[in-house]
Amino acid sequence: MNAQSAVRETVERLALIDHHVHGALRGSISQQEWANAFIEADTQPFPPHLDPLDTQLGFAVRAWCSPILDLPRHADPAAYWQRRTHLGEEEVNRRFLNAAGVQRWLIDTGFATDTILDPQQMADISGQPADEIVRLEVLAEELHTAGVLPADYPDAFRALMTDRTRDAVGTKTILAYRCGFDVDLSRPSDAAVSSAYRQWRQEDPRLIDPTLIAFGMHEATRAGLPLQIHVGFGDRDLDLRTADPLLLTDFLRDPHVQQTSVLLLHCYPYERAAGYLAQAFPNVYLDVGLAVNYLGARSAAVIARCLELAPFSKILYSSDAYGPAELHYLGARLWRTGLAEALSQFVASDEWSVDDAVRIAHLIGSGNARRAYPALNREEQFA
Amino acid sequence: MNAQSAVRETVERLALIDHHVHGALRGSISQQEWANAFIEADTQPFPPHLDPLDTQLGFAVRAWCSPILDLPRHADPAAYWQRRTHLGEEEVNRRFLNAAGVQRWLIDTGFATDTILDPQQMADISGQPADEIVRLEVLAEELHTAGVLPADYPDAFRALMTDRTRDAVGTKTILAYRCGFDVDLSRPSDAAVSSAYRQWRQEDPRLIDPTLIAFGMHEATRAGLPLQIHVGFGDRDLDLRTADPLLLTDFLRDPHVQQTSVLLLHCYPYERAAGYLAQAFPNVYLDVGLAVNYLGARSAAVIARCLELAPFSKILYSSDAYGPAELHYLGARLWRTGLAEALSQFVASDEWSVDDAVRIAHLIGSGNARRAYPALNREEQFA
Amino acid sequence: MNAQSAVRETVERLALIDHHVHGALRGSISQQEWANAFIEADTQPFPPHLDPLDTQLGFAVRAWCSPILDLPRHADPAAYWQRRTHLGEEEVNRRFLNAAGVQRWLIDTGFATDTILDPQQMADISGQPADEIVRLEVLAEELHTAGVLPADYPDAFRALMTDRTRDAVGTKTILAYRCGFDVDLSRPSDAAVSSAYRQWRQEDPRLIDPTLIAFGMHEATRAGLPLQIHVGFGDRDLDLRTADPLLLTDFLRDPHVQQTSVLLLHCYPYERAAGYLAQAFPNVYLDVGLAVNYLGARSAAVIARCLELAPFSKILYSSDAYGPAELHYLGARLWRTGLAEALSQFVASDEWSVDDAVRIAHLIGSGNARRAYPALNREEQFA
Repeated sequence: MNAQSAVRETVERLALIDHHVHGALRGSISQQEWANAFIEADTQPFPPHLDPLDTQLGFAVRAWCSPILDLPRHADPAAYWQRRTHLGEEEVNRRFLNAAGVQRWLIDTGFATDTILDPQQMADISGQPADEIVRLEVLAEELHTAGVLPADYPDAFRALMTDRTRDAVGTKTILAYRCGFDVDLSRPSDAAVSSAYRQWRQEDPRLIDPTLIAFGMHEATRAGLPLQIHVGFGDRDLDLRTADPLLLTDFLRDPHVQQTSVLLLHCYPYERAAGYLAQAFPNVYLDVGLAVNYLGARSAAVIARCLELAPFSKILYSSDAYGPAELHYLGARLWRTGLAEALSQFVASDEWSVDDAVRIAHLIGSGNARRAYPALNREEQFA
Repeated sequence: MNAQSAVRETVERLALIDHHVHGALRGSISQQEWANAFIEADTQPFPPHLDPLDTQLGFAVRAWCSPILDLPRHADPAAYWQRRTHLGEEEVNRRFLNAAGVQRWLIDTGFATDTILDPQQMADISGQPADEIVRLEVLAEELHTAGVLPADYPDAFRALMTDRTRDAVGTKTILAYRCGFDVDLSRPSDAAVSSAYRQWRQEDPRLIDPTLIAFGMHEATRAGLPLQIHVGFGDRDLDLRTADPLLLTDFLRDPHVQQTSVLLLHCYPYERAAGYLAQAFPNVYLDVGLAVNYLGARSAAVIARCLELAPFSKILYSSDAYGPAELHYLGARLWRTGLAEALSQFVASDEWSVDDAVRIAHLIGSGNARRAYPALNREEQFA
Repeated sequence: MNAQSAVRETVERLALIDHHVHGALRGSISQQEWANAFIEADTQPFPPHLDPLDTQLGFAVRAWCSPILDLPRHADPAAYWQRRTHLGEEEVNRRFLNAAGVQRWLIDTGFATDTILDPQQMADISGQPADEIVRLEVLAEELHTAGVLPADYPDAFRALMTDRTRDAVGTKTILAYRCGFDVDLSRPSDAAVSSAYRQWRQEDPRLIDPTLIAFGMHEATRAGLPLQIHVGFGDRDLDLRTADPLLLTDFLRDPHVQQTSVLLLHCYPYERAAGYLAQAFPNVYLDVGLAVNYLGARSAAVIARCLELAPFSKILYSSDAYGPAELHYLGARLWRTGLAEALSQFVASDEWSVDDAVRIAHLIGSGNARRAYPALNREEQFA
């Protein structure tokens, strides 16, 4: 076995930690709902002449997922759907979650959880432990719904966060969707928080106030909890221009923020800027999850770009899969292909040694996540 | 014939729709004028020590255009110019326009038209139909010159647009050159338009007022006319920073705007952001015209990047050629080379099937343009 | 010898002008200081679990620098350090500076010069002439320290600049580190300069005032001195978002600025925008120094991207090495590898002729620098 084959073999066999993922489908959905799950950025019904499978993601599903369902590569969508329906969601989930080669799932439980599996169910089906990531905005919105008084809000948030994260491994903020990064993210006083909450009480329970969101982010990092931040590409509720990670620079300069892991998720098309931050700040990590699935046959290019400025100890794997279990598998499948391509090129040109390539593959596949999330080294939760 | 050859063969034979192009030269120009036509971004005389042919575009002209004039590849500029002069502009036009393999030209008639061919002439020389794209700013400036009264301006604009677009297939705005995208592009009231026009009447007839430009854009989309928008790279009159398509996000969120095709032109270096918008908004299309010519031997990279987030039904071909007919041919030549390279790699790694690659090549080459411009399916105008 | 080999051979043999570089180490440093020199963007002690050699730069040092010290490629860090210590800094400097294949060094003497070699010493050790680049902010800070009166400041700055640049070949500004580019960079009046200086006199001697920095930039260009500008990537003192070269567009539009060379340094991740400016403005040049070293095995990608819009007469070589002489060598080594890869691909696809590739390699390696810095054609300073 030559050097490049050794690298490819290693990457194929990595037992990955998927550090940012959602549940797979709880039950069957319609063919249209299934297809629309592959257009992240489109919240409307897709016009009839635009086929959501005529995308890199759609082609990747047909190329890589078909064989898992005993179909030939590139199966046509009708045949694929027929076979998928025949097998049923439970068998489909079982096949894809196992084929992913994931040793542990870190599951964001903060979004539309009624149609998807919870961490315990994910662990049961995949046979691998599943841990929870708590969305900070959901905690705030619970307090809003409960009618907490303004004077009580800061302490109530802290108490709820402490309670909900007791068995979790980290937190997440989706400020990119709520107010963008081009706001004041310095730590607000409790008085400022109470005042902002007083205003919010008179409004819609969907939290968009930057003061209250920044409050959650600072409380999480001061409690030593890893903080995931949605960065870059997402659906069109988001203003991609204000989801640029460089707008987080001042937040990352806060010495208290630097005491825990900050994990920049997705990052496309800002992955090179995110790599800069991962080098500039010892506590900052990045992944290119979500983008990998959506780029399909082009995903190797973005994976290679995340191997630029970021130290190799700062790069993580995630799928950001949500819903159809194709996404849980495909994220891992494309990541392995792209990472193996990059690393084997480095080895082929003798710029990296094989030993280094193998070592770094293990760091990126799981070692870095174990360091970034200290709670992963506690007893496992849902296994 | 193997799979990759089948893909390459298909791409070579595509009868393209060049959905954004200008006329070829009407008559002969000097050698310096000819060379300067290859430096889009430079409006001054080029300093003597800087040869405009020492660029990717210049090298691409010498590599690909020389054989069309019966010269060896990489002919030196002096020999090229001598041969070009010997053949004469009419023969040069005939050769390049035919060699482009374009089935239909969508011609922007709004810029410096006295030295270039009009759509009828383009159709006559190339033997293929040519349609018109109307520049909205030109219509406004005509009304300014005509001395229309402020109270009459909104209706006068609508009437003129209706008249001028009767036989056209779409409209175009160059707000990137006039005020950039970092302005309020929401729909102004007629009263606000009249007021802005009143102010403009006292100024230079070159339209730079954002209110009046936004008015034109909204009138065009409300009339169901496809709207081309110059995005990204262009000459240095433009501030490239405010030609970022993400600054159009709010405009694209307007439900009325979503009722017609919006076509993001050029996009370099924002092609990945443009691809995001093409996925986020069902009515948004993109091309990487102009950039393809200017990048020459590097153009395959930008073509590959536009095959990332954008659904395959949203990608179009254009040359954005203006003046020397080398550009009309070279845009198509480089596009075929780059597209074939990307698609054949997808097929070689078995991530795409050959059938899909062939189908998508036809969509990008002409099928998507036929859907984006409904008037193309009317009787052809200048054939 | 085939065409691609001819191109590679040419690039290997180029006698480079390193147009932006600092001194190599004057004496020995600790192992930790040495390793930390490879994390540009981190000003703190590196956490123990994060190895600064587990980066593209660290791997490139082990791959390419080891043989220069008679070690096998990919030597482990302990063995490398032992050998390096055994040889001593003087021998290490001698080997790397000579192996770089640089014919001339243009040395920025404005930063932490007590631990590094001065231009005369660099010339002595390398056997090649070394010229000086003067940092404008250092001049201003000298006047502040000297207690110059506000009314005298404008003339005092001009006199000091004239004096210090008499034997220098150009100037440099690090406004990216001091106030960013998103400030007013128009030329201030002497009265405005005096007033800004009056305010600064009451503050820290580190210059961050945009008016005074802009004053220095305009004085340099009006004196016909080449002006280097740090752009993009650097350590985290800098806000990468405001180091975007497109923010310099208005400054570059000033007709007086256009009378001398402006050299955009580093540029990552904005190298495509910098290429646009190099095409738009006849006096603007760019390099991708610093980034090349930090990207290691990925540096060929950024080198290829700087061969897009920029005319070939506008691209320069630099290492931006500072301290360990590995960086002076590695910059050249990686640049040769990346440039040869790009050019030989252009030749392999017959998009460039071999003769053109050879000619452009020489322009980029040294010819463009000779034109950009007129003083290089004076008698050499430190040879």
